[in-house]
Amino acid sequence: MFEFFYAPGTCALASHIALEEAGAPHKLHRLNFANQDQTSAEYLAVNSKGRVPTLVTPAGALTETPAILAYIAQAFPDAGLAPLNDPFAFARIQSFNSYLCSTVHVSHAHRVRGYRWTDDPAAIETMKMKVPETVAAGFAHIENELFIGPYVMGEHYSIADPYLFTLAQWMPGDSIDPARFPKIAEHGELMRSRPAVARALEAEKV
Amino acid sequence: MFEFFYAPGTCALASHIALEEAGAPHKLHRLNFANQDQTSAEYLAVNSKGRVPTLVTPAGALTETPAILAYIAQAFPDAGLAPLNDPFAFARIQSFNSYLCSTVHVSHAHRVRGYRWTDDPAAIETMKMKVPETVAAGFAHIENELFIGPYVMGEHYSIADPYLFTLAQWMPGDSIDPARFPKIAEHGELMRSRPAVARALEAEKV
Repeated sequence: MFEFFYAPGTCALASHIALEEAGAPHKLHRLNFANQDQTSAEYLAVNSKGRVPTLVTPAGALTETPAILAYIAQAFPDAGLAPLNDPFAFARIQSFNSYLCSTVHVSHAHRVRGYRWTDDPAAIETMKMKVPETVAAGFAHIENELFIGPYVMGEHYSIADPYLFTLAQWMPGDSIDPARFPKIAEHGELMRSRPAVARALEAEKV
Repeated sequence: MFEFFYAPGTCALASHIALEEAGAPHKLHRLNFANQDQTSAEYLAVNSKGRVPTLVTPAGALTETPAILAYIAQAFPDAGLAPLNDPFAFARIQSFNSYLCSTVHVSHAHRVRGYRWTDDPAAIETMKMKVPETVAAGFAHIENELFIGPYVMGEHYSIADPYLFTLAQWMPGDSIDPARFPKIAEHGELMRSRPAVARALEAEKV
Protein backbone atom coordinates (compact mmCIF):
# COMPACT_ATOMS: atom_id res chain seq x y z
CA MET A 1 0.00 0.00 0.00
CA PHE A 2 1.32 3.41 -1.02
CA GLU A 3 0.58 6.69 0.72
CA PHE A 4 0.08 9.56 -1.71
CA PHE A 5 0.21 13.19 -0.61
CA TYR A 6 -1.33 15.72 -2.97
CA ALA A 7 -3.19 19.01 -3.13
CA PRO A 8 -6.02 19.69 -5.58
CA GLY A 9 -5.12 21.75 -8.63
CA THR A 10 -1.42 20.85 -8.50
CA CYS A 11 0.88 18.75 -10.66
CA ALA A 12 0.28 15.89 -8.20
CA LEU A 13 -2.70 14.94 -10.36
CA ALA A 14 -0.32 13.41 -12.90
CA SER A 15 1.07 10.89 -10.43
CA HIS A 16 -2.40 10.29 -9.01
CA ILE A 17 -3.70 9.33 -12.44
CA ALA A 18 -0.69 7.06 -13.00
CA LEU A 19 -1.42 5.28 -9.72
CA GLU A 20 -4.98 4.69 -10.91
CA GLU A 21 -3.81 3.53 -14.33
CA ALA A 22 -1.37 1.08 -12.71
CA GLY A 23 -3.97 -0.26 -10.31
CA ALA A 24 -1.54 0.57 -7.51
CA PRO A 25 -3.20 0.36 -4.08
CA HIS A 26 -2.84 3.76 -2.44
CA LYS A 27 -4.19 5.85 0.37
CA LEU A 28 -4.77 9.51 -0.45
CA HIS A 29 -3.70 12.34 1.85
CA ARG A 30 -5.08 15.69 0.79
CA LEU A 31 -3.16 18.83 1.74
CA ASN A 32 -4.88 22.18 1.92
CA PHE A 33 -2.48 24.77 0.58
CA ALA A 34 -4.77 27.57 1.80
CA ASN A 35 -4.05 26.35 5.33
CA GLN A 36 -0.32 25.98 4.59
CA ASP A 37 -0.58 22.25 5.30
CA GLN A 38 2.54 21.75 3.19
CA THR A 39 4.69 23.56 5.73
CA SER A 40 3.34 21.74 8.80
CA ALA A 41 5.91 19.86 10.88
CA GLU A 42 3.99 16.67 10.16
CA TYR A 43 4.25 17.07 6.40
CA LEU A 44 7.82 18.35 6.42
CA ALA A 45 8.74 15.06 8.11
CA VAL A 46 7.37 13.33 5.00
CA ASN A 47 8.78 15.77 2.43
CA SER A 48 11.27 18.35 3.70
CA LYS A 49 10.79 20.41 0.52
CA GLY A 50 7.25 21.22 1.62
CA ARG A 51 5.81 20.54 -1.80
CA VAL A 52 3.56 18.00 -3.47
CA PRO A 53 3.40 15.29 -4.63
CA THR A 54 5.03 12.78 -2.31
CA LEU A 55 4.64 9.06 -2.87
CA VAL A 56 5.52 7.03 0.20
CA THR A 57 6.42 3.49 -0.84
CA PRO A 58 7.39 0.52 1.34
CA ALA A 59 11.02 1.35 0.44
CA GLY A 60 10.78 5.06 1.30
CA ALA A 61 9.43 8.38 0.04
CA LEU A 62 9.71 9.69 -3.49
CA THR A 63 9.32 13.27 -4.69
CA GLU A 64 9.44 15.04 -8.08
CA THR A 65 6.80 14.17 -10.63
CA PRO A 66 9.02 12.76 -13.41
CA ALA A 67 10.65 10.38 -10.91
CA ILE A 68 7.33 9.24 -9.41
CA LEU A 69 5.87 8.65 -12.86
CA ALA A 70 8.85 6.58 -14.00
CA TYR A 71 8.76 4.64 -10.73
CA ILE A 72 5.09 3.73 -11.17
CA ALA A 73 5.77 2.60 -14.75
CA GLN A 74 8.70 0.43 -13.66
CA ALA A 75 7.11 -0.94 -10.49
CA PHE A 76 3.92 -1.96 -12.34
CA PRO A 77 5.25 -3.23 -15.65
CA ASP A 78 2.01 -5.04 -16.52
CA ALA A 79 0.23 -1.69 -16.74
CA GLY A 80 2.29 -0.87 -19.85
CA LEU A 81 2.82 2.77 -18.90
CA ALA A 82 6.24 3.02 -20.59
CA PRO A 83 8.38 1.05 -23.08
CA LEU A 84 10.57 -0.40 -20.32
CA ASN A 85 12.73 -2.53 -22.59
CA ASP A 86 13.57 0.21 -25.08
CA PRO A 87 16.00 2.74 -23.54
CA PHE A 88 15.58 5.22 -26.38
CA ALA A 89 11.77 5.17 -26.35
CA PHE A 90 11.81 5.41 -22.55
CA ALA A 91 14.20 8.36 -22.76
CA ARG A 92 11.90 10.17 -25.18
CA ILE A 93 9.16 9.99 -22.56
CA GLN A 94 11.56 11.15 -19.87
CA SER A 95 12.64 14.02 -22.10
CA PHE A 96 9.03 15.07 -22.58
CA ASN A 97 8.32 14.92 -18.85
CA SER A 98 11.52 16.78 -18.06
CA TYR A 99 10.45 19.55 -20.43
CA LEU A 100 7.09 19.82 -18.67
CA CYS A 101 8.76 19.93 -15.28
CA SER A 102 11.66 22.30 -15.93
CA THR A 103 10.16 24.59 -18.59
CA VAL A 104 6.34 24.54 -18.79
CA HIS A 105 5.64 24.16 -15.06
CA VAL A 106 8.38 26.67 -14.24
CA SER A 107 6.92 29.21 -16.68
CA HIS A 108 3.50 28.76 -15.08
CA ALA A 109 4.95 29.16 -11.58
CA HIS A 110 5.97 32.72 -12.40
CA ARG A 111 2.29 33.72 -12.22
CA VAL A 112 1.57 32.28 -8.79
CA ARG A 113 4.94 31.88 -7.11
CA GLY A 114 7.07 34.71 -8.44
CA TYR A 115 8.27 35.38 -4.89
CA ARG A 116 10.57 32.39 -5.31
CA TRP A 117 12.80 34.36 -7.65
CA THR A 118 12.53 37.98 -6.58
CA ASP A 119 11.68 39.94 -3.45
CA ASP A 120 10.33 42.91 -5.37
CA PRO A 121 6.51 43.13 -5.67
CA ALA A 122 6.77 45.22 -8.83
CA ALA A 123 9.03 42.62 -10.47
CA ILE A 124 6.56 39.89 -9.53
CA GLU A 125 3.86 41.81 -11.39
CA THR A 126 6.01 42.01 -14.52
CA MET A 127 6.61 38.25 -14.31
CA LYS A 128 2.86 37.63 -14.22
CA MET A 129 2.43 39.67 -17.38
CA LYS A 130 4.77 37.41 -19.36
CA VAL A 131 3.27 34.09 -18.23
CA PRO A 132 0.64 33.84 -21.00
CA GLU A 133 3.46 34.20 -23.55
CA THR A 134 5.98 31.82 -21.97
CA VAL A 135 3.51 29.08 -21.07
CA ALA A 136 1.92 29.27 -24.52
CA ALA A 137 5.38 28.97 -26.09
CA GLY A 138 5.85 25.72 -24.18
CA PHE A 139 2.54 24.32 -25.34
CA ALA A 140 3.23 25.46 -28.90
CA HIS A 141 6.48 23.50 -28.85
CA ILE A 142 4.57 20.46 -27.62
CA GLU A 143 1.74 20.89 -30.14
CA ASN A 144 4.04 21.45 -33.11
CA GLU A 145 7.15 19.41 -32.33
CA LEU A 146 6.70 16.79 -29.63
CA PHE A 147 3.11 15.52 -29.64
CA ILE A 148 2.50 12.56 -31.95
CA GLY A 149 -1.13 11.61 -31.25
CA PRO A 150 -3.57 10.38 -30.27
CA TYR A 151 -1.38 10.00 -27.19
CA VAL A 152 1.76 12.02 -26.59
CA MET A 153 4.04 9.29 -27.87
CA GLY A 154 1.67 7.94 -30.51
CA GLU A 155 -0.62 4.94 -30.33
CA HIS A 156 0.50 3.89 -26.87
CA TYR A 157 -0.59 5.57 -23.68
CA SER A 158 2.35 6.35 -21.36
CA ILE A 159 3.38 8.32 -18.29
CA ALA A 160 3.75 11.37 -20.55
CA ASP A 161 -0.04 11.54 -20.95
CA PRO A 162 -1.25 12.24 -17.42
CA TYR A 163 1.50 14.84 -17.01
CA LEU A 164 0.55 16.76 -20.17
CA PHE A 165 -3.14 16.46 -19.26
CA THR A 166 -2.45 17.90 -15.80
CA LEU A 167 -0.48 20.95 -16.90
CA ALA A 168 -2.84 21.63 -19.80
CA GLN A 169 -5.63 22.17 -17.23
CA TRP A 170 -3.82 25.35 -16.18
CA MET A 171 -4.10 27.14 -19.52
CA PRO A 172 -7.27 29.13 -18.76
CA GLY A 173 -5.81 30.27 -15.42
CA ASP A 174 -2.76 31.46 -17.33
CA SER A 175 -5.01 33.40 -19.75
CA ILE A 176 -4.37 31.00 -22.62
CA ASP A 177 -7.23 29.80 -24.81
CA PRO A 178 -6.90 25.98 -25.01
CA ALA A 179 -8.42 26.12 -28.50
CA ARG A 180 -5.09 27.50 -29.75
CA PHE A 181 -3.68 24.00 -29.33
CA PRO A 182 -6.19 21.63 -30.94
CA LYS A 183 -4.08 18.47 -30.58
CA ILE A 184 -3.60 19.06 -26.88
CA ALA A 185 -7.30 19.90 -26.48
CA GLU A 186 -8.30 16.68 -28.24
CA HIS A 187 -5.84 14.78 -26.05
CA GLY A 188 -7.59 16.26 -23.02
CA GLU A 189 -10.93 14.88 -24.20
CA LEU A 190 -9.39 11.47 -24.83
CA MET A 191 -7.87 11.52 -21.34
CA ARG A 192 -11.19 12.40 -19.70
CA SER A 193 -12.74 9.33 -21.32
CA ARG A 194 -10.35 7.03 -19.45
CA PRO A 195 -11.82 5.51 -16.28
CA ALA A 196 -8.55 5.97 -14.35
CA VAL A 197 -8.54 9.68 -15.12
CA ALA A 198 -12.19 10.02 -14.11
CA ARG A 199 -11.48 8.25 -10.82
CA ALA A 200 -8.54 10.51 -9.99
CA LEU A 201 -10.50 13.66 -10.88
CA GLU A 202 -13.45 12.49 -8.77
CA ALA A 203 -11.21 11.73 -5.78
CA GLU A 204 -9.56 15.17 -5.97
CA LYS A 205 -12.87 17.08 -6.13
CA VAL A 206 -12.81 19.98 -3.72
CA MET B 1 28.56 6.38 -32.77
CA PHE B 2 26.72 9.20 -31.00
CA GLU B 3 26.88 12.87 -31.90
CA PHE B 4 26.95 15.12 -28.85
CA PHE B 5 26.20 18.84 -29.06
CA TYR B 6 27.35 20.95 -26.14
CA ALA B 7 28.63 24.36 -25.17
CA PRO B 8 31.37 24.92 -22.57
CA GLY B 9 30.19 26.00 -19.14
CA THR B 10 26.70 24.58 -19.56
CA CYS B 11 24.82 21.67 -18.01
CA ALA B 12 25.83 19.61 -21.05
CA LEU B 13 28.98 18.69 -19.12
CA ALA B 14 26.94 16.22 -17.05
CA SER B 15 25.94 14.16 -20.08
CA HIS B 16 29.43 14.51 -21.54
CA ILE B 17 30.93 12.99 -18.41
CA ALA B 18 28.36 10.18 -18.47
CA LEU B 19 29.30 9.37 -22.07
CA GLU B 20 32.93 9.13 -20.97
CA GLU B 21 32.04 7.00 -17.94
CA ALA B 22 30.03 4.64 -20.14
CA GLY B 23 32.75 4.37 -22.76
CA ALA B 24 30.15 5.41 -25.32
CA PRO B 25 31.75 6.29 -28.66
CA HIS B 26 30.80 9.86 -29.45
CA LYS B 27 31.72 12.76 -31.67
CA LEU B 28 31.71 16.17 -30.00
CA HIS B 29 30.15 19.24 -31.59
CA ARG B 30 30.96 22.43 -29.74
CA LEU B 31 28.54 25.33 -29.95
CA ASN B 32 29.67 28.87 -29.29
CA PHE B 33 26.89 30.64 -27.43
CA ALA B 34 28.67 33.99 -27.91
CA ASN B 35 28.10 33.53 -31.65
CA GLN B 36 24.50 32.38 -31.09
CA ASP B 37 25.35 29.02 -32.65
CA GLN B 38 22.41 27.52 -30.78
CA THR B 39 19.94 29.50 -32.86
CA SER B 40 21.51 28.71 -36.24
CA ALA B 41 19.24 26.99 -38.75
CA GLU B 42 21.69 24.09 -38.79
CA TYR B 43 21.42 23.52 -35.04
CA LEU B 44 17.68 24.17 -34.82
CA ALA B 45 17.30 21.26 -37.25
CA VAL B 46 19.00 19.10 -34.62
CA ASN B 47 17.25 20.60 -31.57
CA SER B 48 14.36 22.95 -32.24
CA LYS B 49 14.54 24.25 -28.67
CA GLY B 50 17.89 25.88 -29.46
CA ARG B 51 19.48 24.64 -26.27
CA VAL B 52 22.16 22.19 -25.21
CA PRO B 53 22.77 19.35 -24.72
CA THR B 54 21.54 17.23 -27.60
CA LEU B 55 22.56 13.60 -27.95
CA VAL B 56 21.97 12.24 -31.42
CA THR B 57 21.69 8.46 -31.27
CA PRO B 58 21.18 5.99 -34.11
CA ALA B 59 17.49 5.96 -33.10
CA GLY B 60 17.09 9.74 -33.04
CA ALA B 61 17.90 12.84 -31.02
CA LEU B 62 17.47 13.23 -27.27
CA THR B 63 17.28 16.43 -25.26
CA GLU B 64 16.93 17.30 -21.54
CA THR B 65 19.75 16.31 -19.22
CA PRO B 66 17.84 13.92 -16.90
CA ALA B 67 16.58 11.97 -19.91
CA ILE B 68 19.99 11.79 -21.58
CA LEU B 69 21.63 10.64 -18.36
CA ALA B 70 19.05 7.90 -17.79
CA TYR B 71 19.40 6.84 -21.42
CA ILE B 72 23.17 6.47 -21.15
CA ALA B 73 22.76 4.43 -17.95
CA GLN B 74 20.21 2.12 -19.58
CA ALA B 75 21.93 1.83 -22.95
CA PHE B 76 25.28 0.94 -21.34
CA PRO B 77 24.25 -1.29 -18.44
CA ASP B 78 27.76 -2.69 -17.96
CA ALA B 79 28.98 0.74 -16.91
CA GLY B 80 26.87 0.46 -13.74
CA LEU B 81 25.72 4.08 -13.81
CA ALA B 82 22.35 3.36 -12.19
CA PRO B 83 20.60 0.53 -10.28
CA LEU B 84 18.63 -0.56 -13.34
CA ASN B 85 16.89 -3.49 -11.69
CA ASP B 86 15.66 -1.59 -8.64
CA PRO B 87 12.83 0.79 -9.59
CA PHE B 88 12.89 2.56 -6.23
CA ALA B 89 16.65 3.15 -6.19
CA PHE B 90 16.49 4.26 -9.83
CA ALA B 91 13.65 6.65 -8.97
CA ARG B 92 15.67 8.19 -6.14
CA ILE B 93 18.35 9.09 -8.67
CA GLN B 94 15.74 10.43 -11.05
CA SER B 95 14.25 12.49 -8.24
CA PHE B 96 17.64 13.97 -7.45
CA ASN B 97 18.29 14.81 -11.09
CA SER B 98 14.81 16.27 -11.48
CA TYR B 99 15.44 18.54 -8.50
CA LEU B 100 18.68 19.76 -10.09
CA CYS B 101 16.94 20.39 -13.39
CA SER B 102 13.71 22.03 -12.24
CA THR B 103 14.87 23.85 -9.09
CA VAL B 104 18.64 24.37 -8.84
CA HIS B 105 19.32 25.02 -12.53
CA VAL B 106 16.18 27.16 -12.79
CA SER B 107 17.27 29.26 -9.80
CA HIS B 108 20.68 29.77 -11.40
CA ALA B 109 19.11 30.73 -14.72
CA HIS B 110 17.53 33.78 -13.11
CA ARG B 111 20.98 35.38 -12.99
CA VAL B 112 21.86 34.92 -16.63
CA ARG B 113 18.56 34.38 -18.43
CA GLY B 114 16.03 36.43 -16.50
CA TYR B 115 14.65 37.71 -19.83
CA ARG B 116 12.91 34.38 -20.17
CA TRP B 117 10.41 35.34 -17.46
CA THR B 118 10.06 39.12 -17.66
CA ASP B 119 10.52 41.86 -20.23
CA ASP B 120 11.40 44.49 -17.62
CA PRO B 121 15.13 45.23 -17.22
CA ALA B 122 14.59 46.48 -13.65
CA ALA B 123 12.83 43.23 -12.72
CA ILE B 124 15.70 41.22 -14.23
CA GLU B 125 18.08 43.08 -11.92
CA THR B 126 15.98 42.17 -8.86
CA MET B 127 16.02 38.53 -9.96
CA LYS B 128 19.81 38.58 -10.13
CA MET B 129 19.97 39.85 -6.57
CA LYS B 130 18.07 36.85 -5.21
CA VAL B 131 20.07 34.18 -7.06
CA PRO B 132 22.76 33.71 -4.39
CA GLU B 133 19.98 32.99 -1.88
CA THR B 134 17.85 30.67 -4.02
CA VAL B 135 20.72 28.66 -5.50
CA ALA B 136 22.33 28.28 -2.06
CA ALA B 137 18.99 27.06 -0.68
CA GLY B 138 19.03 24.32 -3.31
CA PHE B 139 22.57 23.26 -2.45
CA ALA B 140 21.76 23.40 1.27
CA HIS B 141 18.88 20.99 0.69
CA ILE B 142 21.25 18.68 -1.20
CA GLU B 143 24.02 18.95 1.41
CA ASN B 144 21.72 18.41 4.38
CA GLU B 145 18.98 16.14 3.07
CA LEU B 146 19.80 14.35 -0.15
CA PHE B 147 23.55 13.73 -0.36
CA ILE B 148 24.68 10.43 1.19
CA GLY B 149 28.39 10.29 0.34
CA PRO B 150 30.99 9.75 -0.84
CA TYR B 151 28.83 9.74 -3.98
CA VAL B 152 25.39 11.31 -4.14
CA MET B 153 23.62 8.01 -3.57
CA GLY B 154 26.25 6.48 -1.29
CA GLU B 155 28.99 4.02 -2.14
CA HIS B 156 27.98 3.66 -5.77
CA TYR B 157 28.71 6.20 -8.45
CA SER B 158 25.65 7.01 -10.55
CA ILE B 159 24.24 9.46 -13.10
CA ALA B 160 23.41 11.78 -10.19
CA ASP B 161 27.12 12.48 -9.69
CA PRO B 162 28.13 14.18 -12.92
CA TYR B 163 24.99 16.32 -12.77
CA LEU B 164 25.67 17.55 -9.23
CA PHE B 165 29.33 18.09 -10.11
CA THR B 166 28.35 20.18 -13.13
CA LEU B 167 25.92 22.52 -11.38
CA ALA B 168 28.20 22.88 -8.35
CA GLN B 169 30.80 24.46 -10.69
CA TRP B 170 28.47 27.44 -10.99
CA MET B 171 28.51 28.43 -7.31
CA PRO B 172 31.29 31.04 -7.53
CA GLY B 173 29.61 32.67 -10.53
CA ASP B 174 26.44 32.87 -8.46
CA SER B 175 28.39 34.53 -5.60
CA ILE B 176 28.22 31.44 -3.40
CA ASP B 177 31.28 30.24 -1.50
CA PRO B 178 31.59 26.49 -2.21
CA ALA B 179 33.13 26.04 1.25
CA ARG B 180 29.65 26.53 2.72
CA PHE B 181 28.82 23.03 1.46
CA PRO B 182 31.72 20.79 2.52
CA LYS B 183 30.18 17.50 1.39
CA ILE B 184 29.52 18.87 -2.08
CA ALA B 185 33.01 20.37 -2.20
CA GLU B 186 34.58 17.03 -1.24
CA HIS B 187 32.41 15.33 -3.86
CA GLY B 188 33.83 17.75 -6.41
CA GLU B 189 37.38 16.72 -5.54
CA LEU B 190 36.44 13.04 -5.77
CA MET B 191 34.86 13.66 -9.16
CA ARG B 192 37.94 15.46 -10.48
CA SER B 193 40.01 12.38 -9.62
CA ARG B 194 37.99 10.23 -12.01
CA PRO B 195 39.64 9.77 -15.44
CA ALA B 196 36.31 10.12 -17.25
CA VAL B 197 35.69 13.50 -15.63
CA ALA B 198 39.21 14.65 -16.46
CA ARG B 199 38.75 13.62 -20.09
CA ALA B 200 35.46 15.50 -20.41
CA LEU B 201 36.88 18.64 -18.78
CA GLU B 202 39.92 18.50 -21.03
CA ALA B 203 37.80 18.11 -24.17
CA GLU B 204 35.62 21.09 -23.20
CA LYS B 205 38.55 23.41 -22.53
CA VAL B 206 37.97 26.75 -24.19
